[in-house]
Amino acid sequence: MVRWKPGARERLQAAALERFAAVGFDGTTVAEIAATAGLTERTFFRHFGDKREVLFAGQDEFESLFLQGIEAATGDDPIAIVASALESAAAFFPEERRSWSRARQHVIDADPGLQERELLKLSGLSGAMTDALQRRGLDPTPAALAAETGVTVFRVGFTTWIAEGEERTFVAILRAVLAELRALLA
Amino acid sequence: MVRWKPGARERLQAAALERFAAVGFDGTTVAEIAATAGLTERTFFRHFGDKREVLFAGQDEFESLFLQGIEAATGDDPIAIVASALESAAAFFPEERRSWSRARQHVIDADPGLQERELLKLSGLSGAMTDALQRRGLDPTPAALAAETGVTVFRVGFTTWIAEGEERTFVAILRAVLAELRALLA
Repeated sequence: MVRWKPGARERLQAAALERFAAVGFDGTTVAEIAATAGLTERTFFRHFGDKREVLFAGQDEFESLFLQGIEAATGDDPIAIVASALESAAAFFPEERRSWSRARQHVIDADPGLQERELLKLSGLSGAMTDALQRRGLDPTPAALAAETGVTVFRVGFTTWIAEGEERTFVAILRAVLAELRALLA
Repeated sequence: MVRWKPGARERLQAAALERFAAVGFDGTTVAEIAATAGLTERTFFRHFGDKREVLFAGQDEFESLFLQGIEAATGDDPIAIVASALESAAAFFPEERRSWSRARQHVIDADPGLQERELLKLSGLSGAMTDALQRRGLDPTPAALAAETGVTVFRVGFTTWIAEGEERTFVAILRAVLAELRALLA
């Protein structure tokens, strides 16, 4: 019988980032992550399929939040619908996640394989949003443009949110970035 | 002495796409591509490092065209500068390339590894454009927004250009897509 330790998942995530930052993603083993967290490998594998999953866990929830925002939006304006998706997705990035997100991004920036994985995640998000916008009656081209614009605002907003010294909430940043994009294209 | 055959490169590209479409990217060998083109493997390797390079050759020129358009632009309006980049890049997609580009996209859409490679290419383009816009004096956030918007217009425009039955030139489509994006965000 392995005793259930509350917070094991969070401790494993923190330990993994600590090891990835210290010796790189490739140089880190699951055994080291578990040891750093004071847990067993068996416990690790109850929470994550492999070490990469530590960085990409919650991806379904992440995408679902965007799609829920699209469904919940009122009116027909494509960018207003996308803005609703962004507001909804901001719930995935509360203040207590900021330093973890920053450290995670440093790990990803250092590894081309992880970058490809992250790009694929965002490309999938764009495709899912395009589909959801078409289900709301938009034609393919405006649906794709609105979805890609949403991902652009998300990406630029995320980079801003994790910048050292940045203190605004994620949702405040998203609103500012969308306003800046509107001004650029006006 | 191997006799130089004019057009060998183009014949290899056409042969590769024919094989990729018939049996998939993974199922195709360089030997088969060369045989289909009526050429030797040795000739293949004078033109391409491997079979994947057949699909991604010219990437430096592709990116350079965008950057040349940024350098050639007059004025300070970020989106006007990006529009200049798009007009410049359209030179990479003349009418005689359209059917090849369409077939290439079908091959890429069928292979996750090739999709990741393509996403990495476009992400690199976005980064290079962001840097070029910052060299022109733009702050990081508007530079990133303008660059990503340029890539969005390119991606949506490219999808439109290779659609069956589409007859407008690439540059005409890019202009229409940028106008549609402006209208969405107005």
